[in-house]
Amino acid sequence: MSGSVDLNSDLGESFGAWSMGDDAALLRVVSSANVACGFHAGDPSTMLATCREAAANGVTVGAHVSYRDLAGFGRRPMEIPAGELRDEVLYQLAALAGIARVAGTAVRYVKPHGALYNRIVHDAGQARAVVDAVVAFDPTLALLGLAGSAVERAADEAGVRFVREAFVDRGYRPDGTLVPRTEPGALLSDEREIAARALRMVTEGRVVAADGTDLAVEVDSLCVHGDTPGAVAMARGVRDALAAAGVRVEPFA
Amino acid sequence: MSGSVDLNSDLGESFGAWSMGDDAALLRVVSSANVACGFHAGDPSTMLATCREAAANGVTVGAHVSYRDLAGFGRRPMEIPAGELRDEVLYQLAALAGIARVAGTAVRYVKPHGALYNRIVHDAGQARAVVDAVVAFDPTLALLGLAGSAVERAADEAGVRFVREAFVDRGYRPDGTLVPRTEPGALLSDEREIAARALRMVTEGRVVAADGTDLAVEVDSLCVHGDTPGAVAMARGVRDALAAAGVRVEPFA
Amino acid sequence: MSGSVDLNSDLGESFGAWSMGDDAALLRVVSSANVACGFHAGDPSTMLATCREAAANGVTVGAHVSYRDLAGFGRRPMEIPAGELRDEVLYQLAALAGIARVAGTAVRYVKPHGALYNRIVHDAGQARAVVDAVVAFDPTLALLGLAGSAVERAADEAGVRFVREAFVDRGYRPDGTLVPRTEPGALLSDEREIAARALRMVTEGRVVAADGTDLAVEVDSLCVHGDTPGAVAMARGVRDALAAAGVRVEPFA
Amino acid sequence: MSGSVDLNSDLGESFGAWSMGDDAALLRVVSSANVACGFHAGDPSTMLATCREAAANGVTVGAHVSYRDLAGFGRRPMEIPAGELRDEVLYQLAALAGIARVAGTAVRYVKPHGALYNRIVHDAGQARAVVDAVVAFDPTLALLGLAGSAVERAADEAGVRFVREAFVDRGYRPDGTLVPRTEPGALLSDEREIAARALRMVTEGRVVAADGTDLAVEVDSLCVHGDTPGAVAMARGVRDALAAAGVRVEPFA
Repeated sequence: MSGSVDLNSDLGESFGAWSMGDDAALLRVVSSANVACGFHAGDPSTMLATCREAAANGVTVGAHVSYRDLAGFGRRPMEIPAGELRDEVLYQLAALAGIARVAGTAVRYVKPHGALYNRIVHDAGQARAVVDAVVAFDPTLALLGLAGSAVERAADEAGVRFVREAFVDRGYRPDGTLVPRTEPGALLSDEREIAARALRMVTEGRVVAADGTDLAVEVDSLCVHGDTPGAVAMARGVRDALAAAGVRVEPFA
Repeated sequence: MSGSVDLNSDLGESFGAWSMGDDAALLRVVSSANVACGFHAGDPSTMLATCREAAANGVTVGAHVSYRDLAGFGRRPMEIPAGELRDEVLYQLAALAGIARVAGTAVRYVKPHGALYNRIVHDAGQARAVVDAVVAFDPTLALLGLAGSAVERAADEAGVRFVREAFVDRGYRPDGTLVPRTEPGALLSDEREIAARALRMVTEGRVVAADGTDLAVEVDSLCVHGDTPGAVAMARGVRDALAAAGVRVEPFA
Repeated sequence: MSGSVDLNSDLGESFGAWSMGDDAALLRVVSSANVACGFHAGDPSTMLATCREAAANGVTVGAHVSYRDLAGFGRRPMEIPAGELRDEVLYQLAALAGIARVAGTAVRYVKPHGALYNRIVHDAGQARAVVDAVVAFDPTLALLGLAGSAVERAADEAGVRFVREAFVDRGYRPDGTLVPRTEPGALLSDEREIAARALRMVTEGRVVAADGTDLAVEVDSLCVHGDTPGAVAMARGVRDALAAAGVRVEPFA
Repeated sequence: MSGSVDLNSDLGESFGAWSMGDDAALLRVVSSANVACGFHAGDPSTMLATCREAAANGVTVGAHVSYRDLAGFGRRPMEIPAGELRDEVLYQLAALAGIARVAGTAVRYVKPHGALYNRIVHDAGQARAVVDAVVAFDPTLALLGLAGSAVERAADEAGVRFVREAFVDRGYRPDGTLVPRTEPGALLSDEREIAARALRMVTEGRVVAADGTDLAVEVDSLCVHGDTPGAVAMARGVRDALAAAGVRVEPFA
């Protein structure tokens, strides 16, 4: 049984006059903050404030890099030449790294966002482009993603530390991939079930898939969402269940 | 008489499918490259390529930071709260600094672009916001601007090195400010006159204003433009005139 | 005493994944909807949905045109050549007009947003550019703005119908302009006071300024805001007070 | 043999300070102008100027609608929910239609641009979304695309006039699709060959594919490109060859 696990969440997703998420509440729950870098969300002042608040809460900062798509919030899958994608990731990563330093902290990892996250589960070219950006900028950074994905293989080949992530409120298929959001069983909503499921992932390394199969799952970090009030409560429930079982929540980095 | 002077020019102002300027030609003429950072021009791949070419030509890299205004090419004056402006400058500076490092070079200075450049000649609040971004990111960076401006005062107060810039092809008023582009005498076009004028600015520290007054002018760097073929020839003419007089062109930084 | 008055509010200010305002509640209160056109807020699907809901509620649609400034929500004053501004207004107006027609309604007026609204109180050149866009697109459209402003004069000169707007929750100066948001007395918050004030503006044509002066004010439309829950209640309070006094709320157009 | 054919080209693809293409030259060659609508290129002033010049040259105006992607010039394939795509197309179409009217002309057709053009050759959902936008806005508009494509079928089902387009400088495969740009034979460059090929497409309805197969091809409009000086000469060569054979170049609409 693991003595500790990381909890990560998407933060800093406001943009200008528009707010999103209850960042203040989440920063008291998670150990790692995926901070938006301006391409799907996150204006510069939000980035700086989020890094400062993360630092004040002892939360590690990661770069939540995305396709350039404010109108679609980075959720529109895109084909993009590998070199361009690498440079767009590099730009975002560099911008956040400089801002994090000004905020008295540092970027420790990269987590691709939304459509880019999903794409590099299977697309080896785009996965490699993301890894190339990390290696070019700072090969000691970790890369957070789905276990068994193309991006895990690309990270391994490049010698980049890969942090395997599990989702506490998503249904799994027997092969370890997520049930797509368009299918039944994609999203769990019962707080108790979610907390129990999260605990079992960490302590036993197992989760029950949508069809009843009992799956092995390797978890370095649990992703909790925070863009609704209920989600914050869910995140707290997960944290409390872990604490009650003696599992410490602490950054992987 | 000065033994050397810096020549700077705006570079990397292409964006996606759109090209601007003959960067390859200019990089053989100038000693400092003001590289666009994505807010008025300059996509990430252009930024990286420009930094690499600057490094290959021994040209120093500066961050050409701008208001967020692709549609107006950063030429639309804006009022913007000081904190927001500081953070938008910080974002651009950080992004370019990371990219320059990947390209094997480094950002050595900041030069505000277009409407922001002109605004901080007089606007102390915006001038201070730009200086604050420099100090927060790296107080050893230089700031390039107009002598006698609000931004020079703000840099002096903050202990930031200020590099005084003169324009070889712009008319001057008797008070040392530039003739506005909407007035006659704003732009010079005779290559020989421009080269002779540039040389006198450097060797004698003087220039003849539009009304005939002979002005003192302090010059650490001469700005040459490159967005037309004629401009490249003009820049070469300036460099040749300096060389013929034994003045070395070399980065101020 | 007037038998009726228009109530207008800013609507459709969501953008992609970001929501703003309680449009459904406001559409049951107001008679005119200022619909964002994509430059400060309002993606195409939001524009279409807002027009449809306005039509379903019998609410008139106006084009809430703005500087091109998503990051600043159109609140950053900009200098922009008159021709460019005219064309940017025309683009937004045309886009919304086509969408409104698809939604089974029509754009009846133009209300400039935010920094543009404030700028054309005094800036005759920008005021004229906005009027030029209206005249070019459809000279039968009305233009909504502040009484006594440069844009009122420009509209009058061009023969465009001008609709004089008053603000129910803003303090006035003795000269009839608004107390700037940075000064005390800029914003009123007492719901009863606001409702009584709105009623007196409509029935007596008078309002008490911040310094106690009793001012004449000409009102064709009252602006109510809706970007906070309290604001919706305030808007309802105004409507109820008008109804209780026998004043009908109906579109000016 | 056809007595006439349409020649279309992409125009108005400048954006702000960036220029693209020799529109003045092309407007003397083509009969239909695909005018960019702001999502991949085309600021409002460029849109208005292009419509005015098209009108002055007797050239028909079409809406060159695109994914929202200035940084990628609309060349990045995107997955986007059908409703969002329909509304984004509708927005662009409405904006250009209003501007064209102000310029004294009218939008007569829609031609999807770049990645969207290619996607709706095969993607029935996105094809239908584009057709839905056309039907909602004005079902008498034509839709220009590739013969045998998903978008042709969607247009047919909706009763929208479909204009079949052929490319004078692209290689064909035996099945009538284009040789991808990444493969040899994708692009032709010999001006005489291109002119002869264009003429045969129109007069005989046949073209020789890359593998030598002699294909039937149905052509209502020939696409000529203009973003390089050589391309303008090529377009003129096609027009001259048609004229010499007695084929009139005139708008399909």
